[in-house]
Amino acid sequence: MDSHLLKNTLLHFVKFSNDEWNAIENTLIEKVCKKGELYLKPGEVNKYMGFVVKGAFRKFYVKQGEEINFFFYFENEFVVAFQSFLEQKPTIYTIEAMENSKVILFPYSLAQKLYSTSKEWERFGRIICEKMYILSQKRIENFLFQSATERYDELIKEKPEIFQRIPLYHIASYLGMKPQTLSKIRKMK
Amino acid sequence: MDSHLLKNTLLHFVKFSNDEWNAIENTLIEKVCKKGELYLKPGEVNKYMGFVVKGAFRKFYVKQGEEINFFFYFENEFVVAFQSFLEQKPTIYTIEAMENSKVILFPYSLAQKLYSTSKEWERFGRIICEKMYILSQKRIENFLFQSATERYDELIKEKPEIFQRIPLYHIASYLGMKPQTLSKIRKMK
Repeated sequence: MDSHLLKNTLLHFVKFSNDEWNAIENTLIEKVCKKGELYLKPGEVNKYMGFVVKGAFRKFYVKQGEEINFFFYFENEFVVAFQSFLEQKPTIYTIEAMENSKVILFPYSLAQKLYSTSKEWERFGRIICEKMYILSQKRIENFLFQSATERYDELIKEKPEIFQRIPLYHIASYLGMKPQTLSKIRKMK
Repeated sequence: MDSHLLKNTLLHFVKFSNDEWNAIENTLIEKVCKKGELYLKPGEVNKYMGFVVKGAFRKFYVKQGEEINFFFYFENEFVVAFQSFLEQKPTIYTIEAMENSKVILFPYSLAQKLYSTSKEWERFGRIICEKMYILSQKRIENFLFQSATERYDELIKEKPEIFQRIPLYHIASYLGMKPQTLSKIRKMK
């Protein structure tokens, strides 16, 4: 399994031996998603945090027939409908693979088991949640307080690779603007 | 200090002795806020989770000169600009006491210290964050997917006391509707 990236990420939070890692690795699942494949559908419970080894995903919701992109995920990030994961309840989101992708699935049951084994794993759970909270709040505040141009400037600064990997009309939806507006902004820069 | 409510809340997560509690209690601060007093202003760092012993608060942001209510807080809840608290960075929100209120301030530095002392305190930190995440997401999703009437129905089911304690025009702002619309909905019920 191609899990060394995930192992390295986890080692930032938790010290574990090779034996402990082997036990963890046995409960991880490798999943391949083809471009366009739906990784998660509305009504499903998100049972895993998906660590992206390769590829790209978008999470979107459908409002009055229109798909609205909420987040993109790339390598070294956890693709997850986090509320559904935390509560183990059905999600309202759809997650789609935007490229041929590979994820390592970290099961909810494994997370709960690890949280109970040590303080370091509890710390990992707390810090992951804090990061998710901050990301989610930043996303809301971008919408509340920034203009479309400011949102564009921030995105190109923080995730420049997005413009090579995601079609512009999907980025426009993420930024809350029409594709034509995004094209105009890009021409002016 | 009037901290037994907070103590009981914490005991749901963490077992501590009376001696341990006494040490914690020494670093807590009791704060009285008069009705209308600003508990937190934009640009300030929220250094505390404020456990509400008595009273009510509203958290709002100002968009193009208009105050938009984001959350209300009552007894037994933590009033906090949680992102500011987590990152120890300036907030964009204002928090105002809606009644003569009393809060017990739980300092950021105390939280960090307690997290380092035991697995149970780490668990407390994780679970508080998960609850905050879920609350915040529900709030977003209410706005994205529910009609104004559905938001009203949910609020009256989950926090009926709000209509006795908070002026209707503030509730209307929270629900994303004009005060007249809220009055109409209430008459139709």
